[in-house]
Amino acid sequence: MGAKKNLLLISNSRAYGRDYLDHCAEAVSAFLAGINQVLFIPYALKDWDDYAEKARKRLNGLGVELVSIHEAADHPILAVSSADAIFVGGGNTFRLLEAVHAHGLTHLIRERVSSGMLYMGSSAGSNLACPTICTTNDMPIRHVSTFEALKLVPFQINPHFVDADPNSRHMGETRETRIKEFHEENVTPVIGLREGSWLRVEGDKVSLRGDGGAKIFLRGQEPFELGSGNEFSADLELLKQPEASQ
Amino acid sequence: MGAKKNLLLISNSRAYGRDYLDHCAEAVSAFLAGINQVLFIPYALKDWDDYAEKARKRLNGLGVELVSIHEAADHPILAVSSADAIFVGGGNTFRLLEAVHAHGLTHLIRERVSSGMLYMGSSAGSNLACPTICTTNDMPIRHVSTFEALKLVPFQINPHFVDADPNSRHMGETRETRIKEFHEENVTPVIGLREGSWLRVEGDKVSLRGDGGAKIFLRGQEPFELGSGNEFSADLELLKQPEASQ
Repeated sequence: MGAKKNLLLISNSRAYGRDYLDHCAEAVSAFLAGINQVLFIPYALKDWDDYAEKARKRLNGLGVELVSIHEAADHPILAVSSADAIFVGGGNTFRLLEAVHAHGLTHLIRERVSSGMLYMGSSAGSNLACPTICTTNDMPIRHVSTFEALKLVPFQINPHFVDADPNSRHMGETRETRIKEFHEENVTPVIGLREGSWLRVEGDKVSLRGDGGAKIFLRGQEPFELGSGNEFSADLELLKQPEASQ
Repeated sequence: MGAKKNLLLISNSRAYGRDYLDHCAEAVSAFLAGINQVLFIPYALKDWDDYAEKARKRLNGLGVELVSIHEAADHPILAVSSADAIFVGGGNTFRLLEAVHAHGLTHLIRERVSSGMLYMGSSAGSNLACPTICTTNDMPIRHVSTFEALKLVPFQINPHFVDADPNSRHMGETRETRIKEFHEENVTPVIGLREGSWLRVEGDKVSLRGDGGAKIFLRGQEPFELGSGNEFSADLELLKQPEASQ
Protein backbone atom coordinates (compact mmCIF):
# COMPACT_ATOMS: atom_id res chain seq x y z
CA MET A 1 0.00 0.00 0.00
CA GLY A 2 1.15 3.59 -0.57
CA ALA A 3 3.11 5.17 2.27
CA LYS A 4 0.77 8.17 2.28
CA LYS A 5 -2.39 6.13 2.52
CA ASN A 6 -4.74 7.40 5.20
CA LEU A 7 -8.12 5.77 5.73
CA LEU A 8 -10.85 5.53 8.34
CA LEU A 9 -13.10 2.52 7.68
CA ILE A 10 -16.14 2.37 9.94
CA SER A 11 -18.41 -0.66 10.40
CA ASN A 12 -21.64 1.22 11.11
CA SER A 13 -22.55 4.91 10.87
CA ARG A 14 -25.13 4.67 13.63
CA ALA A 15 -24.89 2.77 16.90
CA TYR A 16 -27.98 1.55 18.76
CA GLY A 17 -29.69 4.42 20.60
CA ARG A 18 -27.27 7.02 19.27
CA ASP A 19 -27.36 9.55 16.43
CA TYR A 20 -25.58 9.47 13.09
CA LEU A 21 -21.78 9.09 13.53
CA ASP A 22 -22.00 9.85 17.25
CA HIS A 23 -20.27 6.70 18.51
CA CYS A 24 -17.19 7.44 16.39
CA ALA A 25 -17.31 11.26 16.44
CA GLU A 26 -14.00 11.60 18.22
CA ALA A 27 -12.24 9.34 15.74
CA VAL A 28 -13.80 11.22 12.81
CA SER A 29 -12.72 14.56 14.29
CA ALA A 30 -9.17 13.36 14.83
CA PHE A 31 -9.04 11.85 11.33
CA LEU A 32 -10.23 15.06 9.67
CA ALA A 33 -8.09 17.42 11.78
CA GLY A 34 -6.74 20.18 9.55
CA ILE A 35 -9.24 19.45 6.75
CA ASN A 36 -11.64 22.29 5.92
CA GLN A 37 -13.87 20.53 3.41
CA VAL A 38 -14.89 16.93 2.77
CA LEU A 39 -16.29 15.66 -0.53
CA PHE A 40 -19.27 13.38 0.16
CA ILE A 41 -20.24 10.40 -2.04
CA PRO A 42 -23.99 9.73 -1.47
CA TYR A 43 -24.42 7.11 -4.23
CA ALA A 44 -25.29 4.18 -1.92
CA LEU A 45 -28.68 5.67 -1.07
CA LYS A 46 -31.46 6.64 -3.49
CA ASP A 47 -32.08 10.19 -2.25
CA TRP A 48 -28.77 12.02 -2.64
CA ASP A 49 -30.06 15.44 -1.52
CA ASP A 50 -31.46 14.09 1.70
CA TYR A 51 -28.37 12.00 2.43
CA ALA A 52 -26.00 14.92 1.77
CA GLU A 53 -28.03 17.14 4.09
CA LYS A 54 -27.78 14.60 6.91
CA ALA A 55 -24.03 14.13 6.44
CA ARG A 56 -23.47 17.89 6.13
CA LYS A 57 -25.25 18.66 9.39
CA ARG A 58 -23.23 16.04 11.22
CA LEU A 59 -19.84 17.10 9.88
CA ASN A 60 -20.64 20.81 10.33
CA GLY A 61 -21.18 19.92 13.99
CA LEU A 62 -17.55 18.75 14.02
CA GLY A 63 -16.40 21.98 12.37
CA VAL A 64 -15.91 20.48 8.91
CA GLU A 65 -17.57 21.69 5.69
CA LEU A 66 -19.15 19.10 3.40
CA VAL A 67 -19.90 19.28 -0.32
CA SER A 68 -21.70 16.38 -1.94
CA ILE A 69 -20.27 15.23 -5.27
CA HIS A 70 -23.70 15.48 -6.95
CA GLU A 71 -24.07 19.17 -6.08
CA ALA A 72 -20.44 20.22 -6.57
CA ALA A 73 -19.87 23.04 -9.09
CA ASP A 74 -17.19 20.88 -10.73
CA HIS A 75 -17.66 17.66 -12.70
CA PRO A 76 -17.31 14.61 -10.36
CA ILE A 77 -13.89 13.85 -11.86
CA LEU A 78 -12.64 17.37 -11.09
CA ALA A 79 -14.27 17.35 -7.67
CA VAL A 80 -12.36 14.19 -6.68
CA SER A 81 -9.17 15.49 -8.31
CA SER A 82 -9.09 18.52 -6.04
CA ALA A 83 -10.51 17.03 -2.80
CA ASP A 84 -8.41 16.76 0.36
CA ALA A 85 -10.75 14.15 1.83
CA ILE A 86 -13.71 12.06 0.68
CA PHE A 87 -16.40 10.41 2.75
CA VAL A 88 -18.27 7.49 1.15
CA GLY A 89 -21.53 6.92 3.02
CA GLY A 90 -23.26 3.59 3.60
CA GLY A 91 -26.35 2.14 1.94
CA ASN A 92 -26.48 -0.46 -0.82
CA THR A 93 -23.02 -1.56 -1.96
CA PHE A 94 -24.13 -2.71 -5.44
CA ARG A 95 -25.78 0.65 -6.17
CA LEU A 96 -22.71 2.44 -4.82
CA LEU A 97 -20.22 0.45 -6.89
CA GLU A 98 -22.30 0.86 -10.07
CA ALA A 99 -22.38 4.66 -9.66
CA VAL A 100 -18.67 4.94 -8.84
CA HIS A 101 -17.82 2.91 -11.96
CA ALA A 102 -20.38 4.81 -14.09
CA HIS A 103 -18.91 8.16 -13.09
CA GLY A 104 -15.44 6.93 -13.98
CA LEU A 105 -14.11 7.46 -10.47
CA THR A 106 -12.60 4.05 -9.65
CA HIS A 107 -9.01 4.56 -10.79
CA LEU A 108 -9.00 8.23 -9.88
CA ILE A 109 -9.97 7.63 -6.24
CA ARG A 110 -7.34 4.88 -6.03
CA GLU A 111 -4.63 7.23 -7.34
CA ARG A 112 -5.69 10.14 -5.15
CA VAL A 113 -5.72 7.96 -2.00
CA SER A 114 -2.20 6.76 -2.86
CA SER A 115 -1.18 10.41 -3.01
CA GLY A 116 -2.58 11.16 0.42
CA MET A 117 -6.23 12.15 -0.10
CA LEU A 118 -8.07 11.04 3.06
CA TYR A 119 -10.68 8.30 2.59
CA MET A 120 -13.42 7.80 5.13
CA GLY A 121 -16.06 5.14 4.59
CA SER A 122 -18.84 3.64 6.64
CA SER A 123 -20.57 0.32 5.97
CA ALA A 124 -20.94 0.14 2.14
CA GLY A 125 -18.27 2.85 1.97
CA SER A 126 -15.92 0.50 3.83
CA ASN A 127 -16.83 -2.40 1.51
CA LEU A 128 -15.92 -0.15 -1.41
CA ALA A 129 -12.35 0.32 -0.13
CA CYS A 130 -11.71 -3.45 -0.39
CA PRO A 131 -10.47 -5.51 -3.36
CA THR A 132 -14.06 -6.54 -4.19
CA ILE A 133 -17.57 -6.05 -2.81
CA CYS A 134 -17.88 -9.83 -2.36
CA THR A 135 -18.21 -9.58 1.45
CA THR A 136 -21.08 -7.10 1.50
CA ASN A 137 -24.28 -8.00 3.39
CA ASP A 138 -26.44 -6.13 0.88
CA MET A 139 -29.09 -7.40 -1.49
CA PRO A 140 -27.91 -7.42 -5.13
CA ILE A 141 -30.52 -4.87 -6.26
CA ARG A 142 -28.43 -3.66 -9.23
CA HIS A 143 -26.29 -5.79 -11.50
CA VAL A 144 -22.69 -4.62 -11.82
CA SER A 145 -20.33 -5.73 -14.57
CA THR A 146 -17.62 -6.50 -12.04
CA PHE A 147 -17.46 -6.91 -8.26
CA GLU A 148 -13.95 -5.37 -8.23
CA ALA A 149 -13.83 -2.30 -6.06
CA LEU A 150 -11.27 0.35 -5.07
CA LYS A 151 -8.53 -2.01 -3.74
CA LEU A 152 -7.35 0.57 -1.21
CA VAL A 153 -6.60 -2.22 1.27
CA PRO A 154 -5.58 -5.82 0.47
CA PHE A 155 -8.19 -7.46 2.74
CA GLN A 156 -11.98 -7.73 2.70
CA ILE A 157 -14.19 -6.10 5.33
CA ASN A 158 -17.51 -7.54 6.41
CA PRO A 159 -19.19 -4.56 8.10
CA HIS A 160 -21.93 -4.99 10.74
CA PHE A 161 -20.38 -8.38 11.51
CA VAL A 162 -22.56 -10.35 13.94
CA ASP A 163 -21.86 -13.53 15.82
CA ALA A 164 -24.38 -16.34 15.55
CA ASP A 165 -27.16 -16.03 18.12
CA PRO A 166 -27.23 -19.34 20.06
CA ASN A 167 -30.94 -18.78 20.87
CA SER A 168 -32.02 -18.14 17.30
CA ARG A 169 -34.39 -20.55 15.60
CA HIS A 170 -33.74 -18.94 12.22
CA MET A 171 -32.20 -21.42 9.78
CA GLY A 172 -30.72 -18.98 7.26
CA GLU A 173 -26.90 -18.99 7.01
CA THR A 174 -25.03 -17.29 9.88
CA ARG A 175 -22.60 -14.53 8.95
CA GLU A 176 -19.72 -16.88 9.72
CA THR A 177 -21.13 -19.50 7.32
CA ARG A 178 -21.43 -16.87 4.59
CA ILE A 179 -17.79 -15.83 5.04
CA LYS A 180 -16.78 -19.49 5.00
CA GLU A 181 -18.61 -19.81 1.66
CA PHE A 182 -16.68 -16.76 0.45
CA HIS A 183 -13.46 -18.63 1.26
CA GLU A 184 -14.63 -21.69 -0.65
CA GLU A 185 -14.37 -19.48 -3.74
CA ASN A 186 -11.83 -16.76 -2.84
CA VAL A 187 -8.52 -16.41 -0.99
CA THR A 188 -8.55 -12.84 0.37
CA PRO A 189 -8.56 -12.51 4.20
CA VAL A 190 -11.77 -11.10 5.71
CA ILE A 191 -12.10 -8.82 8.73
CA GLY A 192 -15.51 -9.31 10.32
CA LEU A 193 -15.83 -5.79 11.73
CA ARG A 194 -18.43 -5.70 14.49
CA GLU A 195 -20.65 -2.68 15.00
CA GLY A 196 -18.83 -0.14 17.15
CA SER A 197 -15.48 -0.92 15.48
CA TRP A 198 -13.44 0.85 12.86
CA LEU A 199 -10.05 0.53 11.18
CA ARG A 200 -7.42 3.22 10.88
CA VAL A 201 -5.11 2.62 7.93
CA GLU A 202 -1.89 4.66 7.86
CA GLY A 203 0.46 3.62 5.09
CA ASP A 204 1.04 -0.11 5.60
CA LYS A 205 -0.20 -0.11 9.18
CA VAL A 206 -3.75 -0.97 10.20
CA SER A 207 -5.20 -0.49 13.71
CA LEU A 208 -8.45 -1.80 15.08
CA ARG A 209 -10.32 0.80 17.16
CA GLY A 210 -13.69 1.28 18.81
CA ASP A 211 -15.42 -1.13 21.17
CA GLY A 212 -16.85 -3.95 19.04
CA GLY A 213 -13.72 -5.93 18.24
CA ALA A 214 -13.37 -8.01 15.08
CA LYS A 215 -13.20 -11.61 13.97
CA ILE A 216 -10.50 -12.49 11.46
CA PHE A 217 -11.11 -15.10 8.77
CA LEU A 218 -8.20 -16.59 6.85
CA ARG A 219 -8.90 -19.26 4.25
CA GLY A 220 -8.43 -22.75 5.57
CA GLN A 221 -7.87 -21.62 9.18
CA GLU A 222 -10.05 -21.32 12.25
CA PRO A 223 -11.25 -17.71 12.59
CA PHE A 224 -9.81 -15.79 15.54
CA GLU A 225 -10.75 -12.80 17.63
CA LEU A 226 -9.00 -9.43 17.51
CA GLY A 227 -9.52 -6.79 20.20
CA SER A 228 -9.49 -3.02 19.92
CA GLY A 229 -6.02 -1.45 20.00
CA ASN A 230 -4.35 -4.21 18.03
CA GLU A 231 -2.12 -3.07 15.23
CA PHE A 232 -1.31 -5.18 12.21
CA SER A 233 0.27 -5.00 8.80
CA ALA A 234 -1.88 -4.78 5.71
CA ASP A 235 -1.47 -8.52 5.14
CA LEU A 236 -2.96 -9.03 8.62
CA GLU A 237 0.24 -9.93 10.41
CA LEU A 238 0.01 -8.73 14.01
CA LEU A 239 2.44 -5.85 14.71
CA LYS A 240 1.51 -4.66 18.17
CA GLN A 241 -0.95 -5.62 20.84
CA PRO A 242 -2.67 -2.98 22.98
CA GLU A 243 -0.64 -2.06 26.07
CA ALA A 244 -3.15 -3.39 28.55
CA SER A 245 -2.83 -6.91 27.21
CA GLN A 246 0.95 -6.91 26.78
CA MET B 1 -47.11 -18.98 -17.32
CA GLY B 2 -47.51 -22.30 -19.11
CA ALA B 3 -50.67 -24.24 -18.29
CA LYS B 4 -48.60 -27.34 -17.46
CA LYS B 5 -46.31 -25.56 -15.04
CA ASN B 6 -45.89 -27.45 -11.78
CA LEU B 7 -43.56 -26.13 -9.08
CA LEU B 8 -42.89 -26.52 -5.38
CA LEU B 9 -40.87 -23.58 -4.04
CA ILE B 10 -39.74 -24.02 -0.44
CA SER B 11 -38.36 -21.25 1.80
CA ASN B 12 -36.05 -23.44 3.91
CA SER B 13 -34.97 -27.06 3.58
CA ARG B 14 -34.50 -27.48 7.31
CA ALA B 15 -36.73 -26.19 10.11
CA TYR B 16 -35.39 -25.51 13.60
CA GLY B 17 -34.92 -28.76 15.54
CA ARG B 18 -35.94 -30.94 12.59
CA ASP B 19 -34.06 -32.90 9.95
CA TYR B 20 -33.54 -32.11 6.28
CA LEU B 21 -36.89 -31.61 4.48
CA ASP B 22 -38.86 -33.04 7.41
CA HIS B 23 -41.18 -30.08 7.97
CA CYS B 24 -42.38 -30.22 4.36
CA ALA B 25 -42.07 -33.99 3.76
CA GLU B 26 -45.79 -34.45 3.18
CA ALA B 27 -45.87 -31.67 0.59
CA VAL B 28 -42.79 -33.10 -1.14
CA SER B 29 -44.33 -36.57 -1.21
CA ALA B 30 -47.60 -35.28 -2.65
CA PHE B 31 -45.74 -33.17 -5.20
CA LEU B 32 -43.61 -36.08 -6.41
CA ALA B 33 -46.45 -38.65 -6.42
CA GLY B 34 -46.07 -40.88 -9.49
CA ILE B 35 -42.46 -39.80 -10.10
CA ASN B 36 -39.84 -42.57 -9.88
CA GLN B 37 -36.68 -40.54 -10.23
CA VAL B 38 -35.70 -36.94 -9.49
CA LEU B 39 -32.72 -35.17 -11.04
CA PHE B 40 -30.84 -33.25 -8.34
CA ILE B 41 -28.95 -29.98 -8.97
CA PRO B 42 -26.28 -29.65 -6.20
CA TYR B 43 -24.48 -26.59 -7.67
CA ALA B 44 -25.31 -24.20 -4.79
CA LEU B 45 -22.95 -26.01 -2.39
CA LYS B 46 -19.26 -26.69 -2.87
CA ASP B 47 -19.26 -30.43 -2.19
CA TRP B 48 -21.61 -31.96 -4.76
CA ASP B 49 -21.02 -35.60 -3.73
CA ASP B 50 -21.85 -34.93 -0.11
CA TYR B 51 -24.89 -32.84 -0.98
CA ALA B 52 -26.25 -35.43 -3.41
CA GLU B 53 -25.84 -38.15 -0.80
CA LYS B 54 -27.84 -36.18 1.76
CA ALA B 55 -30.63 -35.41 -0.73
CA ARG B 56 -30.66 -39.01 -1.99
CA LYS B 57 -31.09 -40.46 1.48
CA ARG B 58 -33.96 -38.10 2.24
CA LEU B 59 -35.85 -38.69 -1.01
CA ASN B 60 -35.23 -42.45 -0.84
CA GLY B 61 -37.00 -42.27 2.50
CA LEU B 62 -40.03 -40.92 0.64
CA GLY B 63 -39.80 -43.72 -1.93
CA VAL B 64 -38.25 -41.60 -4.68
CA GLU B 65 -34.95 -42.29 -6.48
CA LEU B 66 -32.49 -39.43 -6.90
CA VAL B 67 -29.70 -38.97 -9.43
CA SER B 68 -27.46 -35.94 -9.13
CA ILE B 69 -26.75 -34.13 -12.39
CA HIS B 70 -22.99 -34.29 -11.75
CA GLU B 71 -22.98 -38.08 -11.51
CA ALA B 72 -25.56 -38.80 -14.22
CA ALA B 73 -24.39 -41.07 -17.08
CA ASP B 74 -25.74 -38.51 -19.54
CA HIS B 75 -24.39 -35.03 -20.24
CA PRO B 76 -26.20 -32.43 -18.04
CA ILE B 77 -28.15 -31.20 -21.09
CA LEU B 78 -29.40 -34.72 -21.85
CA ALA B 79 -30.10 -35.42 -18.19
CA VAL B 80 -32.39 -32.39 -17.94
CA SER B 81 -33.96 -33.18 -21.32
CA SER B 82 -35.15 -36.56 -20.14
CA ALA B 83 -35.98 -35.77 -16.48
CA ASP B 84 -39.53 -35.95 -15.14
CA ALA B 85 -38.66 -33.80 -12.15
CA ILE B 86 -35.71 -31.72 -10.95
CA PHE B 87 -34.85 -30.61 -7.43
CA VAL B 88 -32.58 -27.58 -7.07
CA GLY B 89 -31.07 -27.55 -3.57
CA GLY B 90 -30.20 -24.47 -1.50
CA GLY B 91 -26.83 -22.94 -0.76
CA ASN B 92 -25.25 -19.91 -2.38
CA THR B 93 -27.45 -18.42 -5.11
CA PHE B 94 -24.58 -16.74 -7.00
CA ARG B 95 -22.62 -19.99 -7.23
CA LEU B 96 -25.79 -21.82 -8.29
CA LEU B 97 -26.70 -19.33 -11.02
CA GLU B 98 -23.16 -19.28 -12.38
CA ALA B 99 -23.10 -23.07 -12.70
CA VAL B 100 -26.56 -23.29 -14.29
CA HIS B 101 -25.55 -20.68 -16.88
CA ALA B 102 -22.13 -22.31 -17.41
CA HIS B 103 -23.71 -25.71 -18.09
CA GLY B 104 -26.06 -24.11 -20.61
CA LEU B 105 -29.16 -25.21 -18.70
CA THR B 106 -31.06 -21.92 -18.31
CA HIS B 107 -33.28 -22.00 -21.41
CA LEU B 108 -33.60 -25.76 -21.36
CA ILE B 109 -34.97 -25.89 -17.79
CA ARG B 110 -37.39 -23.08 -18.68
CA GLU B 111 -38.69 -24.99 -21.71
CA ARG B 112 -38.92 -28.30 -19.90
CA VAL B 113 -40.86 -26.74 -16.99
CA SER B 114 -43.30 -25.19 -19.51
CA SER B 115 -43.82 -28.69 -20.90
CA GLY B 116 -44.62 -30.14 -17.50
CA MET B 117 -41.30 -31.22 -15.94
CA LEU B 118 -41.73 -30.82 -12.18
CA TYR B 119 -39.51 -28.20 -10.52
CA MET B 120 -38.80 -28.34 -6.82
CA GLY B 121 -36.53 -25.75 -5.23
CA SER B 122 -35.56 -24.82 -1.71
CA SER B 123 -33.95 -21.56 -0.61
CA ALA B 124 -31.43 -20.70 -3.39
CA GLY B 125 -33.33 -23.18 -5.59
CA SER B 126 -36.46 -21.07 -5.07
CA ASN B 127 -34.54 -17.86 -5.85
CA LEU B 128 -33.43 -19.49 -9.08
CA ALA B 129 -37.04 -19.96 -10.25
CA CYS B 130 -37.63 -16.17 -10.15
CA PRO B 131 -37.01 -13.55 -12.85
CA THR B 132 -33.70 -12.60 -11.21
CA ILE B 133 -31.63 -13.53 -8.17
CA CYS B 134 -31.87 -9.92 -6.93
CA THR B 135 -33.81 -10.87 -3.78
CA THR B 136 -31.38 -13.49 -2.51
CA ASN B 137 -29.93 -13.15 1.00
CA ASP B 138 -26.61 -14.64 -0.03
CA MET B 139 -23.16 -13.14 -0.13
CA PRO B 140 -21.97 -12.39 -3.69
CA ILE B 141 -19.05 -14.83 -3.51
CA ARG B 142 -18.93 -15.35 -7.30
CA HIS B 143 -19.47 -12.73 -9.98
CA VAL B 144 -22.13 -13.60 -12.55
CA SER B 145 -22.49 -11.87 -15.90
CA THR B 146 -26.22 -11.42 -15.36
CA PHE B 147 -28.58 -11.69 -12.39
CA GLU B 148 -31.33 -13.01 -14.69
CA ALA B 149 -32.53 -16.41 -13.61
CA LEU B 150 -35.02 -19.04 -14.80
CA LYS B 151 -38.14 -16.80 -14.91
CA LEU B 152 -40.43 -19.73 -14.08
CA VAL B 153 -42.65 -17.39 -12.05
CA PRO B 154 -43.22 -13.66 -12.64
CA PHE B 155 -42.53 -12.61 -9.03
CA GLN B 156 -39.47 -12.58 -6.77
CA ILE B 157 -39.13 -14.77 -3.69
CA ASN B 158 -37.15 -13.75 -0.64
CA PRO B 159 -36.61 -17.08 1.15
CA HIS B 160 -35.95 -17.29 4.91
CA PHE B 161 -37.88 -14.01 5.22
CA VAL B 162 -37.65 -12.64 8.77
CA ASP B 163 -39.51 -9.81 10.42
CA ALA B 164 -37.49 -7.15 12.19
CA ASP B 165 -36.72 -8.07 15.80
CA PRO B 166 -37.98 -5.17 17.97
CA ASN B 167 -35.43 -6.08 20.68
CA SER B 168 -32.43 -6.13 18.38
CA ARG B 169 -29.65 -3.61 18.84
CA HIS B 170 -28.11 -4.53 15.51
CA MET B 171 -28.09 -1.57 13.14
CA GLY B 172 -27.67 -3.41 9.82
CA GLU B 173 -30.60 -3.15 7.41
CA THR B 174 -33.69 -5.22 8.27
CA ARG B 175 -34.94 -7.64 5.62
CA GLU B 176 -37.86 -5.31 4.96
CA THR B 177 -35.48 -2.37 4.36
CA ARG B 178 -33.49 -4.49 1.91
CA ILE B 179 -36.63 -5.37 -0.06
CA LYS B 180 -37.65 -1.71 -0.02
CA GLU B 181 -34.22 -0.90 -1.53
CA PHE B 182 -34.89 -3.56 -4.18
CA HIS B 183 -38.08 -1.69 -5.08
CA GLU B 184 -36.20 1.60 -5.35
CA GLU B 185 -34.47 0.02 -8.34
CA ASN B 186 -36.89 -2.67 -9.62
CA VAL B 187 -40.64 -3.15 -10.14
CA THR B 188 -41.20 -6.91 -9.69
CA PRO B 189 -43.41 -7.92 -6.73
CA VAL B 190 -41.63 -9.77 -3.91
CA ILE B 191 -42.97 -12.58 -1.74
CA GLY B 192 -41.17 -12.58 1.61
CA LEU B 193 -41.52 -16.32 2.27
CA ARG B 194 -41.03 -17.05 5.95
CA GLU B 195 -39.35 -20.25 7.11
CA GLY B 196 -41.93 -23.03 7.28
CA SER B 197 -43.71 -21.76 4.14
CA TRP B 198 -43.73 -22.89 0.55
CA LEU B 199 -45.51 -22.08 -2.69
CA ARG B 200 -47.30 -24.52 -4.96
CA VAL B 201 -47.49 -23.26 -8.54
CA GLU B 202 -49.91 -25.06 -10.85
CA GLY B 203 -50.26 -23.39 -14.21
CA ASP B 204 -51.26 -19.79 -13.49
CA LYS B 205 -52.35 -20.49 -9.94
CA VAL B 206 -50.13 -20.05 -6.88
CA SER B 207 -50.97 -21.24 -3.36
CA LEU B 208 -49.21 -20.41 -0.13
CA ARG B 209 -48.77 -23.44 2.14
CA GLY B 210 -46.98 -24.41 5.33
CA ASP B 211 -47.13 -22.57 8.63
CA GLY B 212 -44.89 -19.51 8.31
CA GLY B 213 -47.06 -17.22 6.18
CA ALA B 214 -45.62 -14.59 3.89
CA LYS B 215 -45.32 -10.85 3.55
CA ILE B 216 -46.08 -9.38 0.14
CA PHE B 217 -44.17 -6.36 -1.16
CA LEU B 218 -45.49 -4.39 -4.12
CA ARG B 219 -43.54 -1.35 -5.27
CA GLY B 220 -44.92 1.89 -3.86
CA GLN B 221 -47.41 0.16 -1.54
CA GLU B 222 -47.42 -0.82 2.10
CA PRO B 223 -46.46 -4.50 2.43
CA PHE B 224 -49.23 -6.82 3.57
CA GLU B 225 -49.51 -10.21 5.23
CA LEU B 226 -50.65 -13.40 3.51
CA GLY B 227 -51.65 -16.50 5.45
CA SER B 228 -51.29 -20.14 4.53
CA GLY B 229 -54.05 -21.49 2.29
CA ASN B 230 -54.40 -18.32 0.23
CA GLU B 231 -54.51 -18.83 -3.50
CA PHE B 232 -53.52 -16.17 -5.98
CA SER B 233 -52.79 -15.63 -9.63
CA ALA B 234 -49.24 -15.41 -10.87
CA ASP B 235 -49.47 -11.60 -10.88
CA LEU B 236 -50.32 -11.83 -7.15
CA GLU B 237 -54.03 -11.07 -7.45
CA LEU B 238 -55.86 -12.93 -4.70
CA LEU B 239 -58.05 -15.72 -6.07
CA LYS B 240 -59.27 -17.58 -3.03
CA GLN B 241 -58.89 -17.27 0.72
CA PRO B 242 -58.61 -20.33 2.93
CA GLU B 243 -61.99 -21.63 4.07
CA ALA B 244 -61.42 -20.90 7.75
CA SER B 245 -61.05 -17.18 7.10
CA GLN B 246 -63.92 -16.82 4.61
